[in-house]
Amino acid sequence: MLSINKNYLNIKESYLFSDIAAKVAAFTKAHPEKKIIKMGIGDVTRPLCESVIKEMTYAVNEMGKAETFHGYGPEQGYGFIKDSVQGYYAENGVNLENNEIFISDGAKSDLGNILDLFSNDNTVLIPDPVYPVYVDTNIMDGRKIIFADSNEANGFLPLPDTNIQADIIYICSPNNPTGAVYDREQLKLWVDYANKNGSIILFDAAYEAFIGDDHPRSIYEIEGAKTCAIEFCSLSKTAGFTGTRMGYTVVPHLLKFDNVELNKLWLRRQTTKFNGVSYVVQKAALGAFTPEGKSQIRENIAYYKENAKIITDTMDELNIWYTGGKNSPYVWLKCPNNMESWEFFDYLLAKTGVVGTPGAGFGNNGKYFFRLTAFSTKENTIEAMKKFKELFA
Amino acid sequence: MLSINKNYLNIKESYLFSDIAAKVAAFTKAHPEKKIIKMGIGDVTRPLCESVIKEMTYAVNEMGKAETFHGYGPEQGYGFIKDSVQGYYAENGVNLENNEIFISDGAKSDLGNILDLFSNDNTVLIPDPVYPVYVDTNIMDGRKIIFADSNEANGFLPLPDTNIQADIIYICSPNNPTGAVYDREQLKLWVDYANKNGSIILFDAAYEAFIGDDHPRSIYEIEGAKTCAIEFCSLSKTAGFTGTRMGYTVVPHLLKFDNVELNKLWLRRQTTKFNGVSYVVQKAALGAFTPEGKSQIRENIAYYKENAKIITDTMDELNIWYTGGKNSPYVWLKCPNNMESWEFFDYLLAKTGVVGTPGAGFGNNGKYFFRLTAFSTKENTIEAMKKFKELFA
Repeated sequence: MLSINKNYLNIKESYLFSDIAAKVAAFTKAHPEKKIIKMGIGDVTRPLCESVIKEMTYAVNEMGKAETFHGYGPEQGYGFIKDSVQGYYAENGVNLENNEIFISDGAKSDLGNILDLFSNDNTVLIPDPVYPVYVDTNIMDGRKIIFADSNEANGFLPLPDTNIQADIIYICSPNNPTGAVYDREQLKLWVDYANKNGSIILFDAAYEAFIGDDHPRSIYEIEGAKTCAIEFCSLSKTAGFTGTRMGYTVVPHLLKFDNVELNKLWLRRQTTKFNGVSYVVQKAALGAFTPEGKSQIRENIAYYKENAKIITDTMDELNIWYTGGKNSPYVWLKCPNNMESWEFFDYLLAKTGVVGTPGAGFGNNGKYFFRLTAFSTKENTIEAMKKFKELFA
Repeated sequence: MLSINKNYLNIKESYLFSDIAAKVAAFTKAHPEKKIIKMGIGDVTRPLCESVIKEMTYAVNEMGKAETFHGYGPEQGYGFIKDSVQGYYAENGVNLENNEIFISDGAKSDLGNILDLFSNDNTVLIPDPVYPVYVDTNIMDGRKIIFADSNEANGFLPLPDTNIQADIIYICSPNNPTGAVYDREQLKLWVDYANKNGSIILFDAAYEAFIGDDHPRSIYEIEGAKTCAIEFCSLSKTAGFTGTRMGYTVVPHLLKFDNVELNKLWLRRQTTKFNGVSYVVQKAALGAFTPEGKSQIRENIAYYKENAKIITDTMDELNIWYTGGKNSPYVWLKCPNNMESWEFFDYLLAKTGVVGTPGAGFGNNGKYFFRLTAFSTKENTIEAMKKFKELFA
């Protein structure tokens, strides 16, 4: 008689975005004349850049002709795209071997699938608030989870607590949802903690392209990280690939636990349970790494960052406490007037038509906070912030 | 201190295709003048059909414009492609609900990932010989595996043994590597066994498009299958998507174990650990389901099936025992002169330059068998079979 994985029954159903959608739908029905400005979901709105479209179009044509058709490719990605990622890291002074880079259909897949490599009796340390996938994927395996308090006092950048023994540590920097970014000294504390304790850091760098100053874009910029960290990155926010789907994961050869190279285990996992990313998508990604592609991407990111500045300028003007917005597309603000996040959601929607994401959806420590994203149009961002000012001035 | 998933250490390294490549390279070096005809690897060679290219090109253009850009899509696939799959099943008399269909990046991913839903203390029944992924993915989880003898006596179509208690049962029909196909009565025996024992059947239908007669293309053509089977399918062999990557998995609502709907668990798994297939790939797949696309695909499959017939006609003429080739791109032949499969590989390569796959690579019962595929060009297939005849006549 088949028995199911009962850990699944312990996952809390998340209704965050469906609850938001239901509230917005009810509001629109009651007030059909009111304009809604969506600053909630973390999806991009700018189209793929010219260089990406050009490469992808070329690849589609190749696939239509027998002489240039591509069948099965390497599970871990074509050489041409691994070389591009390798070059991109080298620009930040990080030297990787080509076979330390694994191309995948996105960071979300790899962040979940990487757990295949670890025993279920490890203890996991996850910041609260955070991207809910870290928590749910570990509940599915039945691992013990402890939370690192991320809050106003530490600027939503918790540091290691040497009294706690954690085997698997999640760090997301720039953070989703708080937009907070670790500096070198802070990341070094985490790397040293992990190396001392024999822990692994799962470093989610999905928003690294938004870093515009000296904050580290990769954990491998920190000395010692190659013996304790796997890094996950994605073109979703870097090049607008949320619907095109490509990411990459770095597993250094120096990463050894129980005398086994994790790189070999991950290669084994990927060759057994994955068949590589679509050739046309890998070619499209190549277009994001050419000099012209990089420049076109930078323009899109500058556009979003200008939106983020419009938001943070408004928060500064209104004296509203926040993190993020500088090296991140997210602004995480403290709800005015001690409102709880859902209360604030309702209030903001009713008064302004602006939709954000209640912080409670990301963990207990988000109860009095609210996430706004910079992925709207500039016009809508300006309009939303004008309404904010009228409401809270 | 992090501990790894030690089950990984129990997986046998597979050198099947790398050993073949090394032998071919050595032969080519020694005999640079000899032509090699590759009939080993199961990859397609015909390009994507016009209708697929047309839809994919259209989608790439959409992605380049803000008004038609697509960001995150539903993790389980867009409605338009689920509707197409639903319609395709309906043509074979199988009625599915739209949300019983999950779009993914390929059957290989889903066949591995589905195991997330099942406890590791289930017993697994896997035919020998078979596609090695079934075995390896279960070793990774530490499940007990028992093998169903698939051999000349049962035509490589083993039937249920009521003395054995298996919780998870793998069936691949048309089979990889043997090309053997279950008929309705045989599949009904498996469905009845599974329903009686509370087992689940994981039905791999990746080669269903090659069935040209009354053999079932879907396990849901068998009464009772919706309470005991998950079906995996793919456009890889159907529409030449091996490098384009799209598959689909069917999880019927009637499938309940421990009072839990597996459909809900799989939805949860996919929304947590997957972010959907590239929009352009889903649109490309749509092109395979239009009337013109279906007709173009049928032409490609007819081309491969003609190759298969050239192979089986030769085997018939030479009185070599085989399975497959009729409703399958694979011909699984008994090595002439009682040769073992690797011995035969070397002999065939040396004498004819034809490369096939030694049956030993698929399990113990493949020791005296050999797989040829119909995915070469017609010209090469004819030439290879001419050499076969000269050698064994």
